[in-house]
Amino acid sequence: PSLHLPRRMADEAPFQILHNEVIQYIYTSAENGETENGRNITKLENMGFRVGQGLIERLTKDTARFKDELDIMKFICKDFWTCVFKKQIDNLRTNHQGIYVLQDNKFRLLGQLSAGKQYLDQAPKYLAFTCGLVRGALSNLGVKSIVTAEVSIMPACKPLVIHRQVTY
Amino acid sequence: PSLHLPRRMADEAPFQILHNEVIQYIYTSAENGETENGRNITKLENMGFRVGQGLIERLTKDTARFKDELDIMKFICKDFWTCVFKKQIDNLRTNHQGIYVLQDNKFRLLGQLSAGKQYLDQAPKYLAFTCGLVRGALSNLGVKSIVTAEVSIMPACKPLVIHRQVTY
Repeated sequence: PSLHLPRRMADEAPFQILHNEVIQYIYTSAENGETENGRNITKLENMGFRVGQGLIERLTKDTARFKDELDIMKFICKDFWTCVFKKQIDNLRTNHQGIYVLQDNKFRLLGQLSAGKQYLDQAPKYLAFTCGLVRGALSNLGVKSIVTAEVSIMPACKPLVIHRQVTY
Repeated sequence: PSLHLPRRMADEAPFQILHNEVIQYIYTSAENGETENGRNITKLENMGFRVGQGLIERLTKDTARFKDELDIMKFICKDFWTCVFKKQIDNLRTNHQGIYVLQDNKFRLLGQLSAGKQYLDQAPKYLAFTCGLVRGALSNLGVKSIVTAEVSIMPACKPLVIHRQVTY
């Protein structure tokens, strides 16, 4: 009756593996091959958006209203991120003018990508879903935003930096 | 820093919502409409198959070999099911001749389907992924099988019955 994995790892594995399969599915089922790349990114982003909406709805059902935007971002960094990735965002910075930078030092949805140039080429398709996820969550909380993400080459730890710009 | 959901519910929500989105995606991106239903089921089953393979690989990495088929089925009912659905299979029966019936009394991937005829019509697309999941897991453990599932109308609890027939 015991799990053979550390609890945290087992918790996130189904979601992570399904996420990878969704990417595979969308990329292999596209008819036009590589020229379709931009559209596939959009599909993944849209799917993330809807998952983010559904998830934040459940997570905030019994939550008191947020007092401001920063309060919302903190909720994303803590509760929301923990629910999806079983860890919190490691670092949140803001210019207090609508730009927020979220950093995850061990972002797991990058999968088994190895370091190097190919890693950076492949990164966007592994980040699109998560950008949508954050945008969808924020959207449901009344915050319209543009969410982009980037990674840098660091084999040991894979930081994810989310630039979140509020649009007015 | 506290989660606003019971831990179990929060754990499964991302996977569950993503699963729903995958179904939506596959069904809305199909070009031929309703005639495509069979093919969509196959797509979902295949995706589940690959997720099952990936997951069982991780789960059994440090596990001693299984002593027989029943031992494998017990692992699916306990460890594997808990990893994906945060609960064990409630009931496992077998005729000791290659047929296994797994019953989950509160299967969560049926989503917000309400009871009634429409419920039964819609059920197959909510079960296909999970059938593939089990088939993929068993396949990686060297057990070729046919996996089918059915539900009955019971609003309060939604039993999932998996018929697993070993193919020789």
